[in-house]
Formats: sequence, C-alpha cells, structure tokens
Amino acid sequence: MATIRTESDTKHTATVRLNVGGTIFQTTWATLKGVKGSRLCDLDTTSAEWRPEQDEYFFDRDPAVFTYILAFWRTGELHLPGYLCASAIQRELQYWGVSETLVWDCCWKHLYKEGQLQRMKRELREVFADHCPSYYEALRARFRGRRMEAVRWTLWTTLEKPDYSSASRMWFTLYISLVVLSTASLFLQTLPSLRTPIPRQLLMDSGIYDNGTGDCFFPLVSRRMRLSSPKLILLMTTRPQAWLMYVAVVCLVVFTADFVLRLAVTRDRREFCRQWLNWVDVLVMLAEWLGFISTFNCTDHTALGRIGELCRLLSYFRFFRFYRLFWKSDELRLLKLCLKNCQRELVMLIFLAVAASAGFAILVYVMEIGEPLSFQDLPLAMWWAIITLTSVGYGDVTPSSYQGRFVSGMCAISGMLLVALPVAVIATNFGEYHALYREMLALMQRQTADLNRLGTKQERKFKLGGIFVKNKVASLKKW
Amino acid sequence: MATIRTESDTKHTATVRLNVGGTIFQTTWATLKGVKGSRLCDLDTTSAEWRPEQDEYFFDRDPAVFTYILAFWRTGELHLPGYLCASAIQRELQYWGVSETLVWDCCWKHLYKEGQLQRMKRELREVFADHCPSYYEALRARFRGRRMEAVRWTLWTTLEKPDYSSASRMWFTLYISLVVLSTASLFLQTLPSLRTPIPRQLLMDSGIYDNGTGDCFFPLVSRRMRLSSPKLILLMTTRPQAWLMYVAVVCLVVFTADFVLRLAVTRDRREFCRQWLNWVDVLVMLAEWLGFISTFNCTDHTALGRIGELCRLLSYFRFFRFYRLFWKSDELRLLKLCLKNCQRELVMLIFLAVAASAGFAILVYVMEIGEPLSFQDLPLAMWWAIITLTSVGYGDVTPSSYQGRFVSGMCAISGMLLVALPVAVIATNFGEYHALYREMLALMQRQTADLNRLGTKQERKFKLGGIFVKNKVASLKKW
Amino acid sequence: MATIRTESDTKHTATVRLNVGGTIFQTTWATLKGVKGSRLCDLDTTSAEWRPEQDEYFFDRDPAVFTYILAFWRTGELHLPGYLCASAIQRELQYWGVSETLVWDCCWKHLYKEGQLQRMKRELREVFADHCPSYYEALRARFRGRRMEAVRWTLWTTLEKPDYSSASRMWFTLYISLVVLSTASLFLQTLPSLRTPIPRQLLMDSGIYDNGTGDCFFPLVSRRMRLSSPKLILLMTTRPQAWLMYVAVVCLVVFTADFVLRLAVTRDRREFCRQWLNWVDVLVMLAEWLGFISTFNCTDHTALGRIGELCRLLSYFRFFRFYRLFWKSDELRLLKLCLKNCQRELVMLIFLAVAASAGFAILVYVMEIGEPLSFQDLPLAMWWAIITLTSVGYGDVTPSSYQGRFVSGMCAISGMLLVALPVAVIATNFGEYHALYREMLALMQRQTADLNRLGTKQERKFKLGGIFVKNKVASLKKW
Amino acid sequence: MATIRTESDTKHTATVRLNVGGTIFQTTWATLKGVKGSRLCDLDTTSAEWRPEQDEYFFDRDPAVFTYILAFWRTGELHLPGYLCASAIQRELQYWGVSETLVWDCCWKHLYKEGQLQRMKRELREVFADHCPSYYEALRARFRGRRMEAVRWTLWTTLEKPDYSSASRMWFTLYISLVVLSTASLFLQTLPSLRTPIPRQLLMDSGIYDNGTGDCFFPLVSRRMRLSSPKLILLMTTRPQAWLMYVAVVCLVVFTADFVLRLAVTRDRREFCRQWLNWVDVLVMLAEWLGFISTFNCTDHTALGRIGELCRLLSYFRFFRFYRLFWKSDELRLLKLCLKNCQRELVMLIFLAVAASAGFAILVYVMEIGEPLSFQDLPLAMWWAIITLTSVGYGDVTPSSYQGRFVSGMCAISGMLLVALPVAVIATNFGEYHALYREMLALMQRQTADLNRLGTKQERKFKLGGIFVKNKVASLKKW
Repeated sequence: MATIRTESDTKHTATVRLNVGGTIFQTTWATLKGVKGSRLCDLDTTSAEWRPEQDEYFFDRDPAVFTYILAFWRTGELHLPGYLCASAIQRELQYWGVSETLVWDCCWKHLYKEGQLQRMKRELREVFADHCPSYYEALRARFRGRRMEAVRWTLWTTLEKPDYSSASRMWFTLYISLVVLSTASLFLQTLPSLRTPIPRQLLMDSGIYDNGTGDCFFPLVSRRMRLSSPKLILLMTTRPQAWLMYVAVVCLVVFTADFVLRLAVTRDRREFCRQWLNWVDVLVMLAEWLGFISTFNCTDHTALGRIGELCRLLSYFRFFRFYRLFWKSDELRLLKLCLKNCQRELVMLIFLAVAASAGFAILVYVMEIGEPLSFQDLPLAMWWAIITLTSVGYGDVTPSSYQGRFVSGMCAISGMLLVALPVAVIATNFGEYHALYREMLALMQRQTADLNRLGTKQERKFKLGGIFVKNKVASLKKW
Repeated sequence: MATIRTESDTKHTATVRLNVGGTIFQTTWATLKGVKGSRLCDLDTTSAEWRPEQDEYFFDRDPAVFTYILAFWRTGELHLPGYLCASAIQRELQYWGVSETLVWDCCWKHLYKEGQLQRMKRELREVFADHCPSYYEALRARFRGRRMEAVRWTLWTTLEKPDYSSASRMWFTLYISLVVLSTASLFLQTLPSLRTPIPRQLLMDSGIYDNGTGDCFFPLVSRRMRLSSPKLILLMTTRPQAWLMYVAVVCLVVFTADFVLRLAVTRDRREFCRQWLNWVDVLVMLAEWLGFISTFNCTDHTALGRIGELCRLLSYFRFFRFYRLFWKSDELRLLKLCLKNCQRELVMLIFLAVAASAGFAILVYVMEIGEPLSFQDLPLAMWWAIITLTSVGYGDVTPSSYQGRFVSGMCAISGMLLVALPVAVIATNFGEYHALYREMLALMQRQTADLNRLGTKQERKFKLGGIFVKNKVASLKKW
Repeated sequence: MATIRTESDTKHTATVRLNVGGTIFQTTWATLKGVKGSRLCDLDTTSAEWRPEQDEYFFDRDPAVFTYILAFWRTGELHLPGYLCASAIQRELQYWGVSETLVWDCCWKHLYKEGQLQRMKRELREVFADHCPSYYEALRARFRGRRMEAVRWTLWTTLEKPDYSSASRMWFTLYISLVVLSTASLFLQTLPSLRTPIPRQLLMDSGIYDNGTGDCFFPLVSRRMRLSSPKLILLMTTRPQAWLMYVAVVCLVVFTADFVLRLAVTRDRREFCRQWLNWVDVLVMLAEWLGFISTFNCTDHTALGRIGELCRLLSYFRFFRFYRLFWKSDELRLLKLCLKNCQRELVMLIFLAVAASAGFAILVYVMEIGEPLSFQDLPLAMWWAIITLTSVGYGDVTPSSYQGRFVSGMCAISGMLLVALPVAVIATNFGEYHALYREMLALMQRQTADLNRLGTKQERKFKLGGIFVKNKVASLKKW
Repeated sequence: MATIRTESDTKHTATVRLNVGGTIFQTTWATLKGVKGSRLCDLDTTSAEWRPEQDEYFFDRDPAVFTYILAFWRTGELHLPGYLCASAIQRELQYWGVSETLVWDCCWKHLYKEGQLQRMKRELREVFADHCPSYYEALRARFRGRRMEAVRWTLWTTLEKPDYSSASRMWFTLYISLVVLSTASLFLQTLPSLRTPIPRQLLMDSGIYDNGTGDCFFPLVSRRMRLSSPKLILLMTTRPQAWLMYVAVVCLVVFTADFVLRLAVTRDRREFCRQWLNWVDVLVMLAEWLGFISTFNCTDHTALGRIGELCRLLSYFRFFRFYRLFWKSDELRLLKLCLKNCQRELVMLIFLAVAASAGFAILVYVMEIGEPLSFQDLPLAMWWAIITLTSVGYGDVTPSSYQGRFVSGMCAISGMLLVALPVAVIATNFGEYHALYREMLALMQRQTADLNRLGTKQERKFKLGGIFVKNKVASLKKW
C-alpha cells in the first residue's frame, strides 16, 4: 500500500502513519526517504511492523524520545531533551539505528556529562570497594586452601581491614593511638626541658665534645665536623628523658609486631611489596631500631654510631604512619581521588605560583636594587614573592621603597587571582566527588537494606514490588 | 477477549490498548507479560479497567509519568523524567506497583535529592519552629492548670522567647545591651590606666606583697607562689576603678534576677536543667559573685580569698552570655544547624590541618636543623606550620635556610588546597541551608497570609480559589 | 447527557472526555466532582464548552500544563513541571481556577524562584534606569517650562549624567582626573620631603613654637596642648610646597564651580538636598576653603586659625569625591545593590567577627596570663583575634606559650570558617546579580535594536516577524 | 470550507484541526485570526497543508515545540520549554514565522545562555585551533611554492609548534629546560657566595672604586654616582663565577640560534613582527649579549661599559622567555582567555582595591595622627591598607592606637568582601571556560576517532550508523 502511495505521489497521500507505543506520528515518505539507512528508511508493507488494517507501522517503543528522533529526519539536526537521562536516550538511539555521532554539538553536553558521571562513579566504586557487602567474601575466597586459613584470615582482616569486625576496629583505634603517642613523644623529646645531658666524659670519649676548645663535633667517617647550631649541639650532648624513650620503644615494639604479623599472614607477598606504605614502615622501623641501639651505645663513633645519627634523623618520619588513616577515612580517600583527578590543575597551580613568583622576584629585585636592607639576592626575593602570592605575608622580607611597594601590591592582588582560579576548579571537582560519594553511599545503604528485606532469590520473586528483574538484582549484589 | 488474542497469537492482534487518562498507549501482550507481578501484568477482560466497547483498559491516572513506567516494561530499565518532582513520581510508582528499588542508578539522583531536601526542610522546620503561628499556642497549653498560670506564661515568654511580644523584644534588647556593657567593663578593667592600686599595707597584710624583697606572690593553699608576669602583678596589686565595678555589679544583679525568675516560672525544671546555657549562667554568676565578695574583702588569704582569685578568672567567661543571641538570630541558628550537619567535614578539616602541620613541622625542623635561631623545637615548628597553612603568617617564626624556605612555600601552597577543600564543601552546605531557609520563610509568610485571608473553616470552603482541599489546609496550619 | 450518565452510574459510562486544545483527556465524573468549585467541577451539558457531536468538552488551552492540573483532581496533590517558566504556569492556574496556594511544597520552589527573579529584575531595572532609551526623554519633560530650559538641561545633563552625551563623558573624565590629582596632592603633601618649614618667627608669634623649651603646641581655645607626636609637629611647623598648594587650589576651584552650577540648574532643589553625596561635597569644600585661608594666614591663633586646623584635617576626606564613580560604573552600582540586599549577611559577618574575636580574646588572655610580654590587656587581645580571624596576621601581637598557641591555631581555623560562610553567601548573591545584569543588558540592547529596525508603529505591524503584539511592543519601549 | 465555517460561526464548527507531525491540535479560528501575519493566520482551504478528507491541516513538524507556539496564539505570551536546546527552538520559531523578539522576558534566558555558550565555544575553537586535525594541513598550504618548502616547514613546525611532531616536542622540552637553566643561573649569580671579586686595580682603573675614600661609584655619562646600597656595590665590584657565565652563554647561544632560525623560516615576516613575544626575545637577547661583552671588558667606562650596566639589568628579564609556555599549555591559554573576558571585573577589582585602600589610608592616618611611630605619611598608610585588604599582613606597618586598630579591623573585614566578590565572578567564569574546554576536547577526540573509523567518504555512507548526513560530516572535519 505504501508503494501504491509512492506511485500516485500526491502530497497528502504520501503521508505515513507511525504508531510508536500508541502515539501516532505522521510524516511524509519524502522526509523518511531523505536520509538513507536506519530502521525508518527501509519501511514498506513487508516490514514486520506493518499493520494493514490501521494502515500504520507499529513500534513498541517509548514515544517521548521518538519525537526527537523523527525531528532529526525532518530537519537534519539531532537534538536531545534535557530532562531524560543520557543512558535512556542512548538506548533509544541504538534501537532506531541513529549513531551518537550525529547528535548536534549543543546537545552533546548531555551525553558528555553522563559519561563523566559514569567515570566518576566507576572511580568511586573502585576506591570504596570495601563498602560493598560482597567485598569481604571475594577476599575470603583468595585465602582458601592456605595453611591455617582461618587464623590467617582473622589476623589479616584485623590488621589490615579496619572496617571488617569490631576486633579490627579496636586494633585500628589502638594503632592510631600509638601513632599519636609515638609522634607526641617525638615532639616532646625536642624540648630542652625534657632532655637530660649525656655525661661529659662520655661525650669526650666519643669525640663529640672537645674539652680544650669547648666545641662540639659531629662524628663523620674520617674527620669531625664542628657544630655551630645550638639545636645540633643540644641533640648531640643530651638525650631524651628515660620515660620518653620507654614510650617510643613500646610503640616501636608494637609497630614491629604489627608489621611482621602482616607480612606473615599476607595473602600475596607481591601485592604487599607493591604498597609504598609498607616500605615506609620498613624504613622508619629500621631507622628507629638503629637509632635506639646507637642512643644507648654512643660512647664510640664507630660505623654504627655514625649511622645511628642518621637513623635518629630518619626516625623523625615515623609520623608517616599516620597515613594509614587513608585506609579508613572516606573523606581522605575522596581527597586522594580528587587530587589524582586534578593533576593538571595542580601542575597549573604550582607552575603559576613558581612562574609568577619568579617574575615578581626579578621585578622587585630590580626595583629595590638601591635599598640597602631588603632583598639581598634573587632567591630571597622569590621566597618573598611566594609568601606574598599565597597571602601568608610573614613580613621577614618586605620592600622599603615606594616602587618596590607598588610591585608588592600588584603581587598581592595577582596572588588572589592566580591562586584562586585553580583552587576554585579543584574545590568544585572535590565538591562533585563529595556529593556523588554521599549519593552513592545512600544508594548502597538502601540497596543493602532492600536485599536483606528480600531474603532468598525465591522470595524476591514475589516481594520486589511484585516485579522481579534479573539484572537489577544482580546490580544490587555488587556495589 | 485478551485470551482469544493470546490464542491466535499473530503479532498485531497481540497488541493491547491502554487508555491512561485519555492518552492511548499500545504495546504487545508479550511486553506486558515479560515482567511478572504488578498492576499491568494481571490485566485481562475481568479487570475493572476493561472497557469492551473501546477494546481498551482505562486508568484514571497521569499519562506523563506512565510513559516512563511503560518504558520499563519495554526495555527493563526504569528511568525517570528530570522535570517532575520526585514525590509526584513516587506516588505514581506506588500506584502502578513498581518498587522504587528498580529505578536505574543514573536516575536515582532525583529520588535522593528529594530525600535530602525533605530532610533539610524537616531540620529547618524543627529549628525554626517558633516561626509557626501555632507554636505559642502549643506552648501555652503546657502552662494550663499551673498556679498563677497567666503570670507565669507572661513572665516566661518575656524572659525566654524574644520574638513573642513587644515586651519580650524590649527585654531581650535590654539583656543584650547589658551583656555588651558587662563585657565592655571586663575589657576595660584590664587596662592599667583604669585600675587603682590597692594600698601597700593591705597587700602586705594579705601576703601578696613582700616589703623586703619587693616581690609579689599568689596566695596558694599552704604556700605562696612568686609572680614573675607583670600582668599578674598588675591584677594582684590593683583593682578596677569603682565605676567599672558598679557597672559590673548592676549587670550582675540583673542577670541574677533574670536567672532566678526564669527558674521560678519555668514550665519544666528538667528541661531547664538540660540546657547547657543555663549551667554556664549558673557558673559565671557564682564566679562573679564570689569574685566581687573577695575583691572587697582581700585583706586575708583565707580560703574565700583564694577561691576569689580563681573566681575572678572564671568570671571572664561572662562573655558566654552572648550566646543567648542564638535564641533569636536566624542566621546564627542556621550556622549551628549547618555545622552540626558538616561534622564529618569539620573533623576532616581539623585532621587535615593537624596532620599536615605535623608533617610540615617535622620536614622543616629537619631542614633547618643547622640554623641557630629558627625552629628551636618541634612544637614550635608545628605552631609555625598551622599559622602558615591557614595563611595567617605572623612571621614570629620563619625559616632562614633555603631548604627550609622551599618547605615553607610548599606548606603555604598546600594550605590553600587542604583548607580550601573542606571549607568549600561546608560553605556550599551553608549556602543550601540558607537558600532553603529563605524559601521556607517566604512560603510560611504566604501561608499565614492565606490562612488569615480565608477566615473560618466554613468560609474557606468557598474562597480557596473555589476549591477546598482538606490536607492542604492542614499543612497551612502547621509550619 | 452527562446527567444520564450519572443516573446509570456504571463505571465506564461515567467517563468524561475533555478535549484541551486537541489533546483528549479522559477521567471519571467521580474524580471531577471529588473536588468542589473551579471551572472543571461545574461542567454539564449546558456549559459553553460542551460539544455534543463529539460527546466532549472543548477548551482552547495548552494541554501541556493541563496534565498537571488534572493530576491534582486525580490525586489531590498539585505538582508543577520544572521545565516551564512559572509565569506561564500561573496564567494557566488562573484560567482553571486553581489557587496558587494549593501548589505542593516541593514544587513551590519554582514559583518562589520566579518571584525572586522578578524582584531582582525590578531592582536592576530601577538601578540601571538610565540604560533605557526613554529615560532621558522622561527627565527632559520635567525641565519643560523653566526659564532658560535648554541651557539648564544641557548643563544639568553634562554635569550630572555622565552617559548622556560626549560632552558629559568628557566632563566626567576631567572631573575624575581632577579628583585623582587632588587626592594625589593630598598624599604627596604628607611626605616630609615635599614640605617647606614655616619661618621660626611666625611659629613663635602664633604660639606654636616655644623658643625656650623647644616644644611645639597645638593652639586650643584658651590654652595650648603640647605636641609629642613628630607627625603633628611636622604638620604644624611646615607647609606643603607651593606647587602642591596650587594644584589643590585649582582642583578646588573647579569642584566649587561644579557644585554651584549643579545647584543652580537642578530641576528640583529638594531632591538635590536629599543626596548625601552633595552634603559631603559641601562639607569637604568648606573645609578645604577654610583650610587654605588659615594656611596662608596662620600668624595668630584666633578662632579662624584654630578652626583652620580642624578644617585641614576634615579636608583629608576630599577623597570621598571618588564615590561619584558610583554614578557611572555599572559594576559599582551592582556592588551597592548586592550589599544592600545582603544586609542580614553583612550584620552576621560583623557580629560573628566581633563575637568570635571577643571570645578568643578572653580565652587567649586567660591562657597567656603568665607570659610577661604578650597580650597586655583584653582590647589588645581582641585586636589580635580580629587580625588572626581574618587571616591577616600582622604578627605585632603573638602568643608565646603553648596553650596560647593552641588557642591561636583554633582561632585561625575558625576564622577560615566563620568568615568564609557569610562571604560565600554574599559572593553567590553578587554572582547572581551580575549574571542577571549581563542578561538584561543583552536583552535591552537587542530590544533597542529591534525597535529601531521596526520604525514607526504602522510599519511594525508588518515587520515584527509578521505578527504585531501590542503588549510586547509596549515592553520594548520601557526598560 | 474554512470560509463556510466562518459564515455559520457557531462556536464548535469554528474549531480548526491542526495535525502537526501526527499530533492533533484544536483551536478556534478566532484564536488563529486574533494575531495577524505568520504561517498560521493565512490558512484556508487553498493552503498546501489542507487535507480535505480528514478536515485538517497537516504540518510535517515537531509537535513538542508547536504546543508552545500555539499557546502564544491562545494567550499572547510566548514561553519556551527549558528542556530543549535553544537552537532547536529557534529553528521551529523560524519555520512558524514567529520572531524571536516576541519571546517573553522570563524565557529569554534560554536564548541568551545559548548565545553565550556559542560565543564561548567560538572563542575556545579559535584559541585551541591547533587541536583540530586539519589545522596543520591549512598551515602547510601557506608554505607551498616557497624555496626549500619541506625544510622550511619542518624547521618552522619544530621550532614554533610544540605539538606537531615528536621532534618539536623534544625541542620544546629542551628549550624550556634551557630557560629554566638560564633563569636558575640568573638567580644563583646574585648570591654573594657565587661571585668572585674583580681585581681591585681593574676597579680603580675603571673608576668604580676610589682607593682614597674606599667608596664605590656607578659610572654615568659625565660624572660618577656614589653607591650607598651594598647590593649595588656587590654587583659592581664582583662578577659571577666562571661556570655560571658559561651556562648563561651556552643558553644564550641556543636562544639566539632559535630566534635567527625562526626568523629565517617564518612563513610571513609581518606576522612574526606582530607577536610581542618576539620583540621581548630580541630585546632580552641584545641586552644579554651587550651585558656579556661589557662584563669581560669592564676596564673602562666608555659608552659601551655604561650601556653594559643597563643591559645587565635588562637581561634580568630573560625570565620572560618562560611565557612561551603559553604556546603549549592549554591551562595557561584558558587563563589568558578568561582574563581577557573578565577585563571589566579585573578593572573593578583593581579599582576597588585602590579606592578602598586610599579611603582606609586617610582614615587610619587621621586616627593615628597622634602616634609617634606608625603611618609616617599617607603613601605608607596606603601601602599598609593594600597589604591589609589582601589579607597578606606583613606587619611592617601596624596601627598602635585603639582607634587605628578599629579602622584596621574594618579594613581587614572589608578586604574579605571587596576582594572576594570580583574574584568569585572571575573564578566562576574560569570554571565555565574550563568545563566547556574539557567538554569540547572530549567531543573533538570522539569526532576524530569517528572520522578515522569511517574511512573514505564512500565508506561513510554505509557505516555512520546507517545514516549519512552531509553537514554533520562537514562539522566533523573542522574543529
């Protein structure tokens, strides 16, 4: 019948009726044939969709999206409605055989944003994989068949997965408390009032103190370096009070035990080695042990003694153990994810800060070349520029001529802008991740609750609002 | 007839017509039966919706949402339109027997946001309950049957509800003025020029001043502590000028009267005790009274005198009476609500500040170990790091080596980021509460105006735009 | 026929067909009658909308909005679509006789936002009234019938309306240049190197300098005040170099002429008096004149000489003439409008700053009570707190004990929050006004272009896209 | 037939049926004729759209937009749906003969925003033209027909287009490394420890050092200026260590070669001259060469020697070579584009900063007039005000009276606002450009991938989702 129409080819008889899910669309054959290919161009009376008694083609699809697809045939431009989520639109485009590439530039934003959201959700799912109910089941499976399977599993989760059980939560709290204690002892042992002097004779024996000149020395491999900094002299000629040492030793013993146990029960040695936090652990641990040994044994400046000095310095980085909080705190993990995503902006921030500060440093140095007291050299001017750009403004270096002050004012105002722009982009990005994280957390909690309420697979069939949809339940199970 | 169709099972006869509120939807029986359960699966000629003469099923529902629900049957994915508010969609989902759980992840955002908005509105309604016209009626009811009901009610509202009447507004203004006066007198009495010396003989008698050595002492329980701080010596050997004391005493008398009256007329003693602001009131009041007594009576260092010293210090916290402004200022209440909601972000902010400053402190201490004058110990370095991270930059502690300055620049730039990110999240949250608060305030004002215009229940029936809807009027009455 | 249906009262015959603009809606009489009043409840065969041959009621209205209105009959909840602008919806609600009050809370946001936008647009139209093409015509009308109408109009617009003509633009540029010059001369004349000493004898004669003691005095009414500040001595014993004075005098003459002329040609004296900027002009002008007279005549300390001193100080505020830029700069006018709108937030910002700084001041004062050098009194501590909260951090007052530093760190972090929250709200508000301003400016430019293109009223009838709409053209003419 | 209807003029027969793409719209002839002109007013039975058998007018257009256009006939107000992108709406408005000018003010926002987006996209396309696949082809064409075409092209792209080939990427990396090296050598050569003294005799010969008085002099044209600044004395009496000089010379040689080559192979000398970066290159290059020559030849203070001093100062601006990074970094180009777009806001920021600081300077100067040590003159007070407003707060100038501190606190709080508002607008603008840039980059990458996948024009016909649309493919080829 469509062919008969095409023969006669009068304008109104060339009309074609499309029944899409009950809604009638009418257009001309000319419109439909104007664009080659796709599902709509090949329609004729032999099509499966042809319904002769109504003289129409019936498609069991959503009419709301089809309007926009038909408008593409009519006008050659493919626009999308803003209220429908992009994945629903993509599904319809696929059905009607229209390539996504044909979407007009102004509407491509919808598809792009959906893609971005998908990417961000994927990243969040990866980072917060442990919030998924089936996460621990999957991990548990990898322990099967090992010796002392249950013990290893219990120990491993207790030591490495702070959210797994109440035991692991307690252990994690204890661990962090010990890190705080150990860091606090480190901070306190630099206070002169909490240090006791090492006996003068011991110092003279080890070559640190020279009785004749009253100078202090740092024992190097073959010669001695005279110390001029009172801080170094204090560190070399005194030792922390005993109770501070005991606190540090107790903490260290626990940390060592923790590390050894974790290494022993790990499911995969290679993975264990790949975590840089473990290497930090090893280094700081070794440094601390060597430091302790040398502290109680500093009478000679043998190799051990000299390494001991270095180790005591290295052991200051015991603070890095704090970063294990990134295992647990969702906010910190979000921060890490966001910064990883904003690398380009971070590089821009640092580049802008460095380039602008170098420029302002040279400007102010030239401007203040005649001033006797300020900006002795260019690196100092750059230090001043950085501190001004970030609006910290210590005031240890300030311009003293009016031309220098003019440059300084410009620097302060530029600082507001140059720093604010990348920070605003990063903050926006963080805000997006944060909002999405909250949304996904709520979704996951609701899904877990739903799954628990539904019970077994058999029961779900009748409970899930009367409808059982396979792939939806599958998505409920994974995060 | 549907069964006859199923028998023949030719494609086009299997079509089913759904008339939803006048709009015709057509689909196949195969599509409808593909998903079990729900209102649409059980349709047959015995259904109440069956209309044989049109050969269709008639539902008296909104066709706009039904499109998306039918699309779920067609494609197995439940997407929602973005332009309709979630509660309207939820109502339709319920009618058609489709569980909310089945909504696809990309569209779940709508439901989530609606839930968040509902939660925020609930919180705002709770916090600003006193803006509701019926708030005071409900409170009034709880005073019924007490002795001197009217007097108590009048006094209570005047003293505790600054928005109730013009009397209470006046009292609140007076109260806040007195707090300002009392705080101002506190600030002024620390100025040396507004203090008069206590006679030397009195000081010697009370053991504060030792004529022989010229030292000042703080009288402790069994011995005397020599004072080295000029501030403490000033506070011990002088007293504020008389007029400052009179101002403070007058304020205190009023505050005491206010407290006693409020305690006397309170509707519920237990609730009164639960408010921490009342405890602050008691403590500060006691401290002030004891302080005054000991000031005019400082000739001996008996127990009272010594407690007096402590009390005078405690009485400095009279400033906390300012926080009664939280009773009245909507902006402050919003701030409190927002901070309560952003506890996780606040913890993150403080943790980041502390952790980053500890890290930078250790780094800079190690870098500047050879410098004689800067960063004497680690706590000092941490103080420096906090002041740099928040971009305050006092400049009392600054690095003096180039490696230290490099760390310092990194610290200043990180500070921008680490502090900006949580603050941005909190500021966004505050902005949302603020916008919602303004919206709800406008809604409430309009609703109150509507109610007043409508008059009695009988009159409303004919006036409310010609339509009287019961539950809407109910919602008008409550906030 | 509707009545016949109601008699039979079988379910499907009770259906009613509503043809709204060609789209068919079907519902039951029960649904329609369930809600009393309004256009839909009173339908029967006598209605004008009744079309017997189709057995339906025909309304010539938009079907898109009617869906939501009918949904209200069906469910008792009135929700609105988010994609349609609120004023279009309000028009439809009015037609169907549904009160706006019945809109559900969740959808009331649309109406509220539209109301806000309307208010903001009204404010912007008022503030930027002079951008409207007919603005000057309206002003011109008010000058009609005065003596020397044309001269007054030309002078008035030249002096007071910087955007009116090229003459007024030139005058405004000149005026602002003179303000810059006059302010620059003020700044320069405080530099010691640009001042010449007044002859010693003159100073002695006027009693400013006492030869015996070498002291300087400020001449008061009946006695002399000895000056201790070197700045005051400099100001009293020297005068600016002659060329600086000449510059200032020339500027002053121009400003005086401008003021006198503006006063002479003003269209309305009362309006002229109501502008505070004119009063500032008068005051500064008088102060400058008196200052000059006394400068060239300072040999005696008569009343004039003494007033002269005061006047020279007052004349420093000549800088306020800058604020005439608010007449011209759209950005500054936007800023003024935004700040006027954010008064509550500004009060909150200042209150938070003051309250928090008072609290931290007391805390740090108590903490540092034993330190000899820092925080001598509470007002000083409050100064420190303000400077820390705003993250300025001069460093002139810093804590020196660790408990004080802890409070200080808390103060710095709170500062970030307490200041950031109101500032963020104000910045958002400013951003909204700014975006709306840009949008309206573009609209106005396009409308002016349209009007010009259309020519006379007669021509418009055929040109305006083939359609002539009366009220639209009216809106084109006004801003 | 329409005329017959108009004759009878009974209400329901005056109804007109419009079939727009299959959807039926009904309205009265009175409504249609009420607005003159346009496609709908001229309908009668002679229209091409008239279909007698259905008694309707058929238009092969999108019914979704037509609803809003018909609502304009019905109510006289033209509102637009928010969910459809403005360009699609504009197309329909054009078809129906409705002028855009008639769009109601509340809906004009959509059209405005689309216009803004189009402008921003155009700007981005211009700035990032080199991301387009056909960019280099177009450039290549302009080299055709020159001598040594291939060599010139290869050299030119290698030197000027860092993204073209791996050779140009390597060269660019090398160039930037050398800039870093050269800048580092500049910074280092100002350190006293890296400078060697010039032999005393040489200094005496050249008149820089006077043996008798021990003073240093700067050789001017006819006389000598005595140097008082130790920085200048250092620069005059020492020279950088040899290795620093060698580094600088090597860098300079490379930069010179680069410049000469670029000048030689440039496709268009005039364009080369128009780039200000090339002029910076020339100036800095000349300054460096002259500086070097004079450094190795400073025994006399001939003209060359004296120019040499100036040149050495000028050569400090070699740092500007860094700005070639703007060629490559997309983020920097975005920043430039954004700042160019926000000129009005930048002017506002600077004006606000200057005006507010001048105002606060005068205020604080008057307040602190009696203080001996602070705010010696007004320019110093203005310097303080700028540093306080930007919250830098060096602390080198601080108020010392309480009235001055009050002004200072106000200044600090105003600073937060006055600076935050324009910065927020600029940051928002930057964020928009940044988001749009990311979106367009993703679009371009997808389009390039699509084009590559499609192969030749012939193949595209069958591959592009079955549909070949000419203008879309055209848009794929250009950026």
